Amino acid sequence: MSNTQPGSKTGAASPPNEFGAKILDLARQLARWSETADGLTCTYFSAAHKAAARQLCDWMRSAGLHAEIDAVGNVVGRYASDGAAKALIVGSHYDTVADAGLFDGRLGILTGLIVAEHLNRTGRKLPFHLDVIGFAEEEGVRFAAPYLGSSAIAGRFDDAILQRRDKDGVSVAALFQEAGVDRDAIRALGRPAGTLRGYLEIHIEQGPVLLERHLPVGVVTAIAGAARFRVTIRGVAGHAGTVPMPLRHDAAAAGAEIALAVERRCSGHGTLVGTVGQFAVPNGLINVIPGLCELSLDIRAGDNETRDAAIRDILAAAEAIASRRGVSIEIAEIGRHSAVPCAPPMRAALAAAVARAGIEPFHLASGAGHDAAIFAGLTDIGMLFVRCGNGGVSHSPLETITAGDADVAARILLDVVVNLP
Amino acid sequence: MSNTQPGSKTGAASPPNEFGAKILDLARQLARWSETADGLTCTYFSAAHKAAARQLCDWMRSAGLHAEIDAVGNVVGRYASDGAAKALIVGSHYDTVADAGLFDGRLGILTGLIVAEHLNRTGRKLPFHLDVIGFAEEEGVRFAAPYLGSSAIAGRFDDAILQRRDKDGVSVAALFQEAGVDRDAIRALGRPAGTLRGYLEIHIEQGPVLLERHLPVGVVTAIAGAARFRVTIRGVAGHAGTVPMPLRHDAAAAGAEIALAVERRCSGHGTLVGTVGQFAVPNGLINVIPGLCELSLDIRAGDNETRDAAIRDILAAAEAIASRRGVSIEIAEIGRHSAVPCAPPMRAALAAAVARAGIEPFHLASGAGHDAAIFAGLTDIGMLFVRCGNGGVSHSPLETITAGDADVAARILLDVVVNLP
Repeated sequence: MSNTQPGSKTGAASPPNEFGAKILDLARQLARWSETADGLTCTYFSAAHKAAARQLCDWMRSAGLHAEIDAVGNVVGRYASDGAAKALIVGSHYDTVADAGLFDGRLGILTGLIVAEHLNRTGRKLPFHLDVIGFAEEEGVRFAAPYLGSSAIAGRFDDAILQRRDKDGVSVAALFQEAGVDRDAIRALGRPAGTLRGYLEIHIEQGPVLLERHLPVGVVTAIAGAARFRVTIRGVAGHAGTVPMPLRHDAAAAGAEIALAVERRCSGHGTLVGTVGQFAVPNGLINVIPGLCELSLDIRAGDNETRDAAIRDILAAAEAIASRRGVSIEIAEIGRHSAVPCAPPMRAALAAAVARAGIEPFHLASGAGHDAAIFAGLTDIGMLFVRCGNGGVSHSPLETITAGDADVAARILLDVVVNLP
Repeated sequence: MSNTQPGSKTGAASPPNEFGAKILDLARQLARWSETADGLTCTYFSAAHKAAARQLCDWMRSAGLHAEIDAVGNVVGRYASDGAAKALIVGSHYDTVADAGLFDGRLGILTGLIVAEHLNRTGRKLPFHLDVIGFAEEEGVRFAAPYLGSSAIAGRFDDAILQRRDKDGVSVAALFQEAGVDRDAIRALGRPAGTLRGYLEIHIEQGPVLLERHLPVGVVTAIAGAARFRVTIRGVAGHAGTVPMPLRHDAAAAGAEIALAVERRCSGHGTLVGTVGQFAVPNGLINVIPGLCELSLDIRAGDNETRDAAIRDILAAAEAIASRRGVSIEIAEIGRHSAVPCAPPMRAALAAAVARAGIEPFHLASGAGHDAAIFAGLTDIGMLFVRCGNGGVSHSPLETITAGDADVAARILLDVVVNLP
């Protein structure tokens, strides 16, 4: 075992950022299992993914947990309490996007692992089982089936996912059949609500808020649900030289006005964000007035009311812009997921531990989805965000955290689990 | 010969719109030579293009002209005057864009043909040769070499064009070699300035101005020169859910603001027009803040001063928008052609004939380029626009003109040529 293994002894005097340095080192080691020679890509049930699972399971066992890889690929390690105790899950995902950062998802697993290892090493008993879980699939990259791992554990696995296929036509069902996994085996993974004490997740923020506020961590208030739309604008194509400005019905100019209306309406309203991520003039030519424009809309907020009010205003503004410009507009809603609030007791427990660490408890909504949302309603959920370096970039090899911040997060998690009644 | 052939006799009492009906019928006949089974596509030196040239040449000969197809494919028909006379060219192009309208370019050739046929049939002599020319290539579709035909006749053929290749890698030089055409043969096509009386072109407006003003024709004041730019905006990509609005550097939002600035600056200034025909977020995703945006800019006006002042303001606005939003911007000028004024004597001759036809002489700039511009400086140029139906749509099978409007245009051209000193 290397001297950074979770089970290694560091002597009586702890070096600075002991937990954090270990977490970063383990994340770097785990990233060696990649589908690509350079960088990190680890999608569901690839060889790299299976190797990463075995690595996590080995580390959990070395840390003194009872660990196994379950039917759908989740790595589940238990630091056991009494037989009849409930379980507190500390989880996140180990699958990644393409060309990913090292910490998205994995930070949460490794922080749980380091904390469990510390509890085991110091012989500290808890009134609940501590289940450190590495979820097999959260990003939805390979099968467009996000939260596959956590939904199995939450007993919310959707059988429709079995029919999803990857780009090579391989279905989830085929993978499971090859692995000898049937529906009963998946159903058996579901934890009844009565067996759960709660769910905690440490996650890199994936945004710049904590960085801007000079805070290592923040307590998540809610996980925003995105509402998504496809907007198609049809105007009148025309010669760029021959149609005077007042006679134009330019589809892209209408789209530009809508994009700016989205930006304006979503600014200055707390957690509300609105994004036009796709904007295209199909077959556009330099000398032709755009007759067609397609754009996407993604609107999120920490609560549904704020978001839905913005959606109403934005759609009304888009219709008004189209009408004034004499272009037609078609707005198709392609998804609207509810915001999921974190449980007040878990928020309070996290905030108290943050304060005990000498840090101002700062609360923020998560604009991105997380495994935690899958457990909402089943058990109390709580999330702690860790500062994301490099301006807050994530889903990129440029994603960074510092050992100091990881250390703070681990110590806060430790504090929470030992103080949670 | 069909009864709509230019040489056909129609008896003593002319039916209404006799010239116009003939022109429309000939345009429909000529459109049968197409590279596609449906619609009209006739690009330089395709089989359809060569067949169209032969058809035009046959019609010119039937109309009593001395006609031939020259080295580069122009169809040149002369209604001859005395041997020492100068030549008045009445021309336009017979090549087309893909899926073209029937009248763009061809209207001008057929109107010249019908007028020449009438002069020949009625025995009316002119103090100059009347050269009706169908230019082989104006649109620049196949080789991105627009005005190839007219530039040869104007003695302005650019040898660099010989190296241009079509999408299959065939060069203009290879086509010419196959046809036995060398540079000397092309140079021999050039008309010395001293041999020319002037240049007139009838063309469909390709815009809605005459339609909106309920006028069948309009006198062109100048042919606008387009200035074109490629704009690349680099912001910071980010997660659509996790980056608060004030911390974003959205490249597409900057692009949208620039597109609207172009529209605003170019509105309300006479002939000035500005178009963002291309607007893209390369590899844009619905849940990612655009880090890159590419757009095109096409700015034109009837005079260079108006256009260049707009360009200065627009580029300054784009820089200011980029600076305020913290995104980088790169603006590459990819072309700036001078506006070409029509010759005052030709404008006056056309306006006088329009007035004699009982129509209010209306003057307008051409936002599109035309063969006429190639002859500017070499001889006096004049252009007459004919009302474009269907809202002014062109470069489309929906392009239309009425027989009545074509008739008016032919009678005005006839009036001009018989009254031009």
